[in-house]
Amino acid sequence: MPTIAYQGEPGAFSEHAARSFFGGGARLLPVETFKDVFEYATKHPSGFGIVPLENSVFGSVHQNYDLLLRHKLSIVGEVKLRIQLHLMALPGISLRDVSSVYSHPQALGQCEEFLRTLKKVNVVAYYDTAGSAKMIREEKRRDAAALASGRAAARYGLRILRKNVESNHNNYTRFIVLSRKRSVPTRHGKMSLVFAVKNIPGALFKALAVFALREINLLKIESRPLVGKPWEYFFYLDIEGTPNEERVVQALGHLGELATFVRVLGSYQAGSTVRS
Amino acid sequence: MPTIAYQGEPGAFSEHAARSFFGGGARLLPVETFKDVFEYATKHPSGFGIVPLENSVFGSVHQNYDLLLRHKLSIVGEVKLRIQLHLMALPGISLRDVSSVYSHPQALGQCEEFLRTLKKVNVVAYYDTAGSAKMIREEKRRDAAALASGRAAARYGLRILRKNVESNHNNYTRFIVLSRKRSVPTRHGKMSLVFAVKNIPGALFKALAVFALREINLLKIESRPLVGKPWEYFFYLDIEGTPNEERVVQALGHLGELATFVRVLGSYQAGSTVRS
Repeated sequence: MPTIAYQGEPGAFSEHAARSFFGGGARLLPVETFKDVFEYATKHPSGFGIVPLENSVFGSVHQNYDLLLRHKLSIVGEVKLRIQLHLMALPGISLRDVSSVYSHPQALGQCEEFLRTLKKVNVVAYYDTAGSAKMIREEKRRDAAALASGRAAARYGLRILRKNVESNHNNYTRFIVLSRKRSVPTRHGKMSLVFAVKNIPGALFKALAVFALREINLLKIESRPLVGKPWEYFFYLDIEGTPNEERVVQALGHLGELATFVRVLGSYQAGSTVRS
Repeated sequence: MPTIAYQGEPGAFSEHAARSFFGGGARLLPVETFKDVFEYATKHPSGFGIVPLENSVFGSVHQNYDLLLRHKLSIVGEVKLRIQLHLMALPGISLRDVSSVYSHPQALGQCEEFLRTLKKVNVVAYYDTAGSAKMIREEKRRDAAALASGRAAARYGLRILRKNVESNHNNYTRFIVLSRKRSVPTRHGKMSLVFAVKNIPGALFKALAVFALREINLLKIESRPLVGKPWEYFFYLDIEGTPNEERVVQALGHLGELATFVRVLGSYQAGSTVRS
């Protein structure tokens, strides 16, 4: 049974994403930072990591794109998780008793409108959403509430005081599964790649032509300026297809002629959307 | 003299961006939310708004893209601001005296690595970076520090205890200036637009062809799934050029033939990079 490293405490969204990808029997390893996830997967050839790569409200997690470029890991799977945040406290505690609300800074930001409606409450940043639920349980805090997932409430025995308090309910996070071994999916195959072209008119157009001329569908594109090279760009691209398809092999060869840099980040089955 | 609405307290990064764009004489109006900025600029034909649109570490501020689509405002300028965050406290206070650190959740997230090195310190989320510096001054808090800009330190008479504690020093935010009146720049012109195409192979390629065939340079591209329409996408595009150029007019007409939706978000002079 493989071990999957994720950032956060048990009950974290990443743990839920890992569980829904690998099933109930998988061994999950909570670590402190995204970098720790990449390092675990790099050092353990039979292990995996899972990290968020983009969110529908906040955009791409560029830190994890950077870590992808610095490690020799492949994307071997994806999970799209609906992010729902609830306010939770110890059983018997009501909203009136709560003088402090704990959560991860990103979750606090996602619930800013709700938090503004609470009067005289301290909003306290904590290292993790599930970690704040855990702390309230362990320290028997009767004056505090946490913003975390329904699974965190269940795990740490907290009651939900207010459901779905995130400002934008169309809140999805796409997680990617990382491994040292490349994978080739048998169906619904997609590939993620990154390439750089010179910033001259038509350069990106020519790069995309290698896919369009072979009728390969694009699923995502994002440009990002290269730090320290103001006239060059990285492009992150997701395409439909697998490295076993002749037209994909030819397109990547053709891209290599035009681009100053190309790297395939992985090939995997398109992930389904999971409720949190 | 026009009035410019920005989100945050005096000393906020948005205020600095507004000041560097409009100069020292402009009247600046701090408001509570990004939505308030859009509403101010919508209701005041001679007024302006300024909001962040993308950050080099955290990606696009999708909330402001959504607000752009819901309001009839144009982008009329841009400023790129280097984001530097400092730990600051009342004069005479040293790091040993600090038991709480206050800042906006986003800033706390950007300084997560530094905050981990502080032992036994409460990390408290506050509505604004500069607002946390203001609170420490007004409440004469000798046990607290704020994470905010150098200008916030100067404005509220705080001393900097640690400089540049953001985890990633390549941290730039691109701000856009909003107005009900469209503008046409006389030099270094760029345009921002959003369009949607059906998700069929080659659709984006054809859309980009309208620019490439006319040698119009692309400066940024980002795809975003349309909420509720899983097989359609928005594309956010920045191009080099102005609406006075014949080839740009023709390219936009051509794009209208191919796309299911096109909107020009604004035309403006490419902004310079400013230190904070």
